[in-house]
Amino acid sequence: MKLFPRWWQPAVLGLATALLFVPAAQAEAPQQKTQVPGYYRHMVGGFEVTALYDGQIELDTKILKQTPTEQIQRLLADMFRNNPTPTAVNTFLVNTGSQLVLIDTGAGRMFGNSLGNVVANLRAAGYAPEQVDAVLLTHLHGDHVGGAVDAEGKAVFPNAQLFVAKKEADYWLSQETMAKAPQEVQGFFKMAQNAVAPYVASGKLKTFEGEQELLPGIRPVNTRGHTPGHTSYLFESGGRSLLVWGDIVHNAYVQFPRPDTTIEFDIDQKAAAATRKRLFENAARQKLTVTGMHLPFPGIGNVRSEGKAGYRWVPIDYGPVR
Amino acid sequence: MKLFPRWWQPAVLGLATALLFVPAAQAEAPQQKTQVPGYYRHMVGGFEVTALYDGQIELDTKILKQTPTEQIQRLLADMFRNNPTPTAVNTFLVNTGSQLVLIDTGAGRMFGNSLGNVVANLRAAGYAPEQVDAVLLTHLHGDHVGGAVDAEGKAVFPNAQLFVAKKEADYWLSQETMAKAPQEVQGFFKMAQNAVAPYVASGKLKTFEGEQELLPGIRPVNTRGHTPGHTSYLFESGGRSLLVWGDIVHNAYVQFPRPDTTIEFDIDQKAAAATRKRLFENAARQKLTVTGMHLPFPGIGNVRSEGKAGYRWVPIDYGPVR
Repeated sequence: MKLFPRWWQPAVLGLATALLFVPAAQAEAPQQKTQVPGYYRHMVGGFEVTALYDGQIELDTKILKQTPTEQIQRLLADMFRNNPTPTAVNTFLVNTGSQLVLIDTGAGRMFGNSLGNVVANLRAAGYAPEQVDAVLLTHLHGDHVGGAVDAEGKAVFPNAQLFVAKKEADYWLSQETMAKAPQEVQGFFKMAQNAVAPYVASGKLKTFEGEQELLPGIRPVNTRGHTPGHTSYLFESGGRSLLVWGDIVHNAYVQFPRPDTTIEFDIDQKAAAATRKRLFENAARQKLTVTGMHLPFPGIGNVRSEGKAGYRWVPIDYGPVR
Repeated sequence: MKLFPRWWQPAVLGLATALLFVPAAQAEAPQQKTQVPGYYRHMVGGFEVTALYDGQIELDTKILKQTPTEQIQRLLADMFRNNPTPTAVNTFLVNTGSQLVLIDTGAGRMFGNSLGNVVANLRAAGYAPEQVDAVLLTHLHGDHVGGAVDAEGKAVFPNAQLFVAKKEADYWLSQETMAKAPQEVQGFFKMAQNAVAPYVASGKLKTFEGEQELLPGIRPVNTRGHTPGHTSYLFESGGRSLLVWGDIVHNAYVQFPRPDTTIEFDIDQKAAAATRKRLFENAARQKLTVTGMHLPFPGIGNVRSEGKAGYRWVPIDYGPVR
């Protein structure tokens, strides 16, 4: 590979293969090949937010809709990305000081071995699943609720109440709706039902309607479209705020510049696109800090409006906890 | 703060302060407030690269030159950044399989308590300073070489050879050049001299000229301007490559869109700007993966050309070691 123009390279380079220095003779240090733990800490006023990485899945662009394939390929190439695009699954743990609140659970054992790391990363971050007081669910897809149960179907967060919008529960937990759904999506219903089963059994599944505060400083925001009861959660403390928006974006490299791009899994395609556009516009105008479940980990940042070029995702920088 | 248009909010919101749910009664989990360790692993062919975070410094834009202050403020605001801008200090550890090579050392104890975390992060990443075979220095500023010694002036990497371009050593290690330098920059000379002292004493400081391979798969690239012997290092393994470019960028939010922006510390202002522009152009055209010492940690990514809008920094995404 020719890395620099010829005039940059000294004439000697073409000839020289001998090394200037003899390598040192120490014992070799073995390569570690382990990744840094998948958590990241970020303060929102008095709330300590910990992004937790569940893993990544390969997202093929053939499941994206409304934008021509060639445009999608160009957008990815422009950002040095490929198809399929490795796509993060994130969850967020908020310690309000009096409550430990998890937003979504990751996939648990429901989506293969590249996901299911939330509990390991939660432990690496200094917490235990038994300490979680509340799990707020953005929706009931398996990569968001699957981690609520272990391989034996037992509750992973035994002391937590599970919160989900009533519309969402009514849809996925209904035997009648499942029976009417096409064969190929029945699996989604079963995953949701299996994931919440122990919480239903112990009376810990709580459904809510509207946008009233659920816990101090935490309120749900209706962002339906991707699913019937898709919900974002707004955290407010000490004059600062964070919107955990859920599945408003699945492919950051395509949907920020082209927010009209939907995904096969959007149950109401039109509403999903309209909700995304409304959230982008509000987040950009109000300089709102947001985070999402499929934004590049840790997925905390801002949305910038770029006029005709759509929007740009602007992540925060790694830094000390502030 | 008004977060969403009025029509978004249920009428009840203005009235409701009562919570829908009573908080659970568990013992409180104390906030952890610790950040994830500052390392990140990335493979380049058979080379294992570990980005190591030394810390961050506040960079005031008043030390940036050639671009009007109002433009700088607008560029920062557009990317949701402030003045001063928190700016990372990164170093990189490359395990080639037979050699453990550190590129720059961070500031050690020379720049206050917000820096000096390289050794702690190197240990967190599974290595020990005694295992380092070679330290390649991009230049001899204190935030790059200060970490070569501890508070007592002893070598932190006792088994390593220290490599630096001859032009760089000739400049900073010369008593004569120091004597001629203005009073306010004499400290820079002293820091460089103190940092390399134990390596000079043990015959382990190695200077080089030209761009021949220094160690297998590793060659220096002359990128002078910021300092007289400023050097980038190109790593090549298994058909992949990484350019560790050093101090080509100090403020990513200003210098990518406006590469003509220099910094007070650039000893040859014209050459520094010309080198940056050449590197941006080459990196963008050749889709070269690059990393730098003051890019947002871990600072690994690509440079995208955006025509009249200059360039954009496109970081890689967090993911498993590949």
